[in-house]
Amino acid sequence: MITLTRRYRFPAAHVLRRPDWPEAENARVYGKCANPNGHGHDYGIELTVAGPIDPATGRVLDPDRLDALVRERILARFSHRMLNDDPLFERAVPTAENLALAIRRELAEPVTRTGTARLWNVRVVETPRNTFDAGEPR
Amino acid sequence: MITLTRRYRFPAAHVLRRPDWPEAENARVYGKCANPNGHGHDYGIELTVAGPIDPATGRVLDPDRLDALVRERILARFSHRMLNDDPLFERAVPTAENLALAIRRELAEPVTRTGTARLWNVRVVETPRNTFDAGEPR
Amino acid sequence: MITLTRRYRFPAAHVLRRPDWPEAENARVYGKCANPNGHGHDYGIELTVAGPIDPATGRVLDPDRLDALVRERILARFSHRMLNDDPLFERAVPTAENLALAIRRELAEPVTRTGTARLWNVRVVETPRNTFDAGEPR
Amino acid sequence: MITLTRRYRFPAAHVLRRPDWPEAENARVYGKCANPNGHGHDYGIELTVAGPIDPATGRVLDPDRLDALVRERILARFSHRMLNDDPLFERAVPTAENLALAIRRELAEPVTRTGTARLWNVRVVETPRNTFDAGEPR
Amino acid sequence: MITLTRRYRFPAAHVLRRPDWPEAENARVYGKCANPNGHGHDYGIELTVAGPIDPATGRVLDPDRLDALVRERILARFSHRMLNDDPLFERAVPTAENLALAIRRELAEPVTRTGTARLWNVRVVETPRNTFDAGEPR
Amino acid sequence: MITLTRRYRFPAAHVLRRPDWPEAENARVYGKCANPNGHGHDYGIELTVAGPIDPATGRVLDPDRLDALVRERILARFSHRMLNDDPLFERAVPTAENLALAIRRELAEPVTRTGTARLWNVRVVETPRNTFDAGEPR
Repeated sequence: MITLTRRYRFPAAHVLRRPDWPEAENARVYGKCANPNGHGHDYGIELTVAGPIDPATGRVLDPDRLDALVRERILARFSHRMLNDDPLFERAVPTAENLALAIRRELAEPVTRTGTARLWNVRVVETPRNTFDAGEPR
Repeated sequence: MITLTRRYRFPAAHVLRRPDWPEAENARVYGKCANPNGHGHDYGIELTVAGPIDPATGRVLDPDRLDALVRERILARFSHRMLNDDPLFERAVPTAENLALAIRRELAEPVTRTGTARLWNVRVVETPRNTFDAGEPR
Repeated sequence: MITLTRRYRFPAAHVLRRPDWPEAENARVYGKCANPNGHGHDYGIELTVAGPIDPATGRVLDPDRLDALVRERILARFSHRMLNDDPLFERAVPTAENLALAIRRELAEPVTRTGTARLWNVRVVETPRNTFDAGEPR
Repeated sequence: MITLTRRYRFPAAHVLRRPDWPEAENARVYGKCANPNGHGHDYGIELTVAGPIDPATGRVLDPDRLDALVRERILARFSHRMLNDDPLFERAVPTAENLALAIRRELAEPVTRTGTARLWNVRVVETPRNTFDAGEPR
Repeated sequence: MITLTRRYRFPAAHVLRRPDWPEAENARVYGKCANPNGHGHDYGIELTVAGPIDPATGRVLDPDRLDALVRERILARFSHRMLNDDPLFERAVPTAENLALAIRRELAEPVTRTGTARLWNVRVVETPRNTFDAGEPR
Repeated sequence: MITLTRRYRFPAAHVLRRPDWPEAENARVYGKCANPNGHGHDYGIELTVAGPIDPATGRVLDPDRLDALVRERILARFSHRMLNDDPLFERAVPTAENLALAIRRELAEPVTRTGTARLWNVRVVETPRNTFDAGEPR
């Protein structure tokens, strides 16, 4: 088995705050990230796909098909947006943890349908100092 | 003469759009960057300071003083904020070009007052693919 | 389960040599790293913490608490120091392998006490070409 | 157990095409990578070696021995070459997946012979956006 | 005046050798880079454009127009190619120095025609250790 | 004219303190960098050489000759050393500013003797956040 990791980037804005919490609680938990008008990041997304090498092509996966999935399901939805506006984050705070989980759920099945590989791990690089991984149960 | 370059980072959101322009014009000029609720970046700021080496300390500038200036005048103002909310961008679109100029104007004089060095260049790293420099007239 | 990785940096000096070995043996095993007055590195530390997402906050761990642990137990002790002076390295050579293990031992329990996450892996980035991981038994 | 990861780089050229396929099929599967006169990359190779810390030296492996193995078996063979000329790729297309597997096969046994560590993972960094891992069965 | 720097990447192959030189001379001057079947790189191209900020848009240059120029004149021509096949390198060895000059000549005038900015510098990043700049006369 | 920039790295230790100053003054000026047993860095050195392209070779400079100069005059002297032990720093504090100047003085003439290029700039990358340039008078 080989794994292939492919990187994507998109800028987006978010606010970390819960409307059902008092101001002081939001400030205590989320600090400056709770500023109401939002701030933003250049998110890096690293998708790791695992599978056998196709003996005909020498590849685990056709990278163009993965790129198409990411464009349609991730970039068109999140790039240059305010994450809090997405239906996904109506009830969940758009932390990088929740974003990683959401991307994993969005892509796991479509990746499987492209062939013999499966989505092994989704990494969200929020800043150069902070990354978050949603992988297979270990 | 030696130059010293020191790097800082802060996340912020911005929208590129002019309220006095029709929607179509904003979309044509700024593309996805005109999305009204904003998107964001992890801005890198690289300050280059030029001057002679102080023979007593072996330094061009006390880096703690530069850090203090940046904390007070740049990070406290822009970090974890929506740039469009700043008075500076009431009439100017918060492009990286205008941000670089604004930071240069904000820091040039205070840097000079710290000793014998002067602010040589302000670089704004908007994304790993795009940087903007506001330097001395060349 | 999600993992969160957070990066820290500190400069330090070290010497790789055993006082109970003859000079030639130290030179053979450690090469230039055995130079008696030491050399140094900008160590990168990448801590990976694993756990469930807290449904209230959308987070695996409060990053401020992790930062406080690292400041108190790692940076205050090793940053801008000669590693060989630390009691930890009285009998062990301060290789990156031993440093990774030491940091793991120092942080594993306190991380567990901050909530439902546990310390999954400690990575020491000694140089851009060399990294060392002290993880869970696999 | 500790793992040590060590990075190497070499430039090489390759062409992704199968001589037994019609032109159109090569273009469909490999796109611009099928251009007959080749293109190239600066390949990064990251070798991860796992084992116990030797209590005498504080090390998992003598890095000079790993460097010697890589020079003799990998760099002398692939650096500044056209990968398709290598006997290894007479019947397999020189994709990064096949290159990762080939390096793993070439180094696994010699690494074991250097002491108590074993080759845990071979990563090929084809471009900053694409990496490929040939690891232990998971 | 502000400068904007924008980065592009493309993989390509090249051989450094002069057909009119004896083998030994090519080996002496170009070393392993003279291997006849070529090797390759992931070239980074960093274009720096200088000009006043357009008060209407807050920009020095429309980045989409620069991207279009680079796609048509640089990437379509060099990406995934053997540089030695290009008419440009019929009589000049495709060193990074000559590539930087060629790109500067190819883009200088078209950049000027896009508005009030001019092409200030062309940087070719051949490897992470080697960059080459073709700038304005200083 | 073209400039070529080539990067080197070496680890070293240093202490920033003046023996003729009272302890409190050293602590005030140099902070934790004054710790008497030293700390260290992985110094990056970026040498920029400027000159015309040699029409015979397509190069500004033979990179092997530059590498040899750096090995003999810089790496053999500073790599894996305590900088304060060098005669150069008997009377000057080994700040990055003074190190950049020293390297410039050490290499300027030998570079000129290798051909038609001259040493244009010496950059010392002390940490990823701090760089220092000793260039030509501007």
